Amino acid sequence: MRFGIIGTGNAAHHFVWMLVGAGHRLCQVCGRADNGFASRFGAEYIPKVDQFDVTLDLVILAVNDDAIASVSSDLSKSLFAIHLSGMTPLNVLTQKNHGVVWPIQSLSSSKELNYKSLPLLIEANNEKHQTLLKSWFAPISNTVVTGNFEQRVAAHVSAVFVNNFVNHLYDLTADYMKDYKLSFNLMMPIVREEMEKISVMTAEEAQTGPARRGDIQTLKRQMDLLEKRPHLAEIYQVLTNSILRKFHGKEL
Amino acid sequence: MRFGIIGTGNAAHHFVWMLVGAGHRLCQVCGRADNGFASRFGAEYIPKVDQFDVTLDLVILAVNDDAIASVSSDLSKSLFAIHLSGMTPLNVLTQKNHGVVWPIQSLSSSKELNYKSLPLLIEANNEKHQTLLKSWFAPISNTVVTGNFEQRVAAHVSAVFVNNFVNHLYDLTADYMKDYKLSFNLMMPIVREEMEKISVMTAEEAQTGPARRGDIQTLKRQMDLLEKRPHLAEIYQVLTNSILRKFHGKEL
Repeated sequence: MRFGIIGTGNAAHHFVWMLVGAGHRLCQVCGRADNGFASRFGAEYIPKVDQFDVTLDLVILAVNDDAIASVSSDLSKSLFAIHLSGMTPLNVLTQKNHGVVWPIQSLSSSKELNYKSLPLLIEANNEKHQTLLKSWFAPISNTVVTGNFEQRVAAHVSAVFVNNFVNHLYDLTADYMKDYKLSFNLMMPIVREEMEKISVMTAEEAQTGPARRGDIQTLKRQMDLLEKRPHLAEIYQVLTNSILRKFHGKEL
Repeated sequence: MRFGIIGTGNAAHHFVWMLVGAGHRLCQVCGRADNGFASRFGAEYIPKVDQFDVTLDLVILAVNDDAIASVSSDLSKSLFAIHLSGMTPLNVLTQKNHGVVWPIQSLSSSKELNYKSLPLLIEANNEKHQTLLKSWFAPISNTVVTGNFEQRVAAHVSAVFVNNFVNHLYDLTADYMKDYKLSFNLMMPIVREEMEKISVMTAEEAQTGPARRGDIQTLKRQMDLLEKRPHLAEIYQVLTNSILRKFHGKEL
């Protein structure tokens, strides 16, 4: 199929590579200035959104969430338009046919991604266009699933928990260990083991530790140890209580 | 060297395998009953702690934390005794020479471990016995580091953060996703990517997401979404504020 794209940032870069890699043809690129992105793919640079060839099969809005609605309103209503945002509803797009393809992984890094393992959550305003999106993206990724706005937003929040919050726990731990002249590297085997565990069992099954065992004595001793670090103590208590509630129906 | 062990549980199992695998000889096993553990290694089963051969180079107390002190008090004072506990001081051992070898990874699973990547935190009551422990365990693990009780306890708390708490975040997320008919598998690529990232950069450098960006609008929208799940909202707020404080000096 023949497609165009609006934006030349990281998301645009990855979507062009995945579609061109699957044999589709990038025809037009719209951006604030011609930065050479279009010519790298033998495509035409156009400065304005209303210059898109209306015979294109797809136009991708790879722009900031805030800009999606206004860019869409300048685009021909007859084009099939999609956006790539996890936190933006489908219906901010004003084209007759429209959809969303949301990658459940950060595309912001400059590093190469294996698109086969990149989950894509897709939605479209009708069955026909949902099928079209599936036909284009299913050969690219092993995990193309349909999901409405509610599901997309829930997946977005989920990613915050498993990525941003987990990373922050590592960060806090590294800081804490530094105070005791311990290297965070000492934790890497346990971090790797945890990841292997949740690849083969549920996290509920994989849960271990003093809170899982209901070992209140150890929990209290560890809370005491964190007394001078109220910041860590708060997180310790909230997460410990959450585990205790789940497995023992009680709190510290 | 020739060693004995008290206990025949998971920790005993792993320590015997790692030492026998390194060419050391298990001579005596003390346990509540003869379960065949001793004979598997051509060792003698003894029912009582005071029956240990006093010419052994090392006796390992692979018993519950609570039992270490009383078992040690029944053991000949002339033996070199070590315990394996992260939360127990060195000096509960009453032998003239004593030490601790604490593995920074759960030994409770029945699954095989690569001992080369098992970090061991060691301590002894004098330089000579610390050197002995190093000489026995350094050929087994690539990461043998010395650490006093304060450091050991800090490493124990750290393991709770990076293993138990991280696992619980996965568990909460899996539950939350279930409500939206989304599979937790959708998160696995992002979970794997996070682990790869912290293998090559610090968690501080790896931090991403709305709180890292200071994107208060998205944070508030996500908090609103969690309104009916006060349990998740509390964790969301505590961890978000912790990231906001660190990177932007403010809170939600």
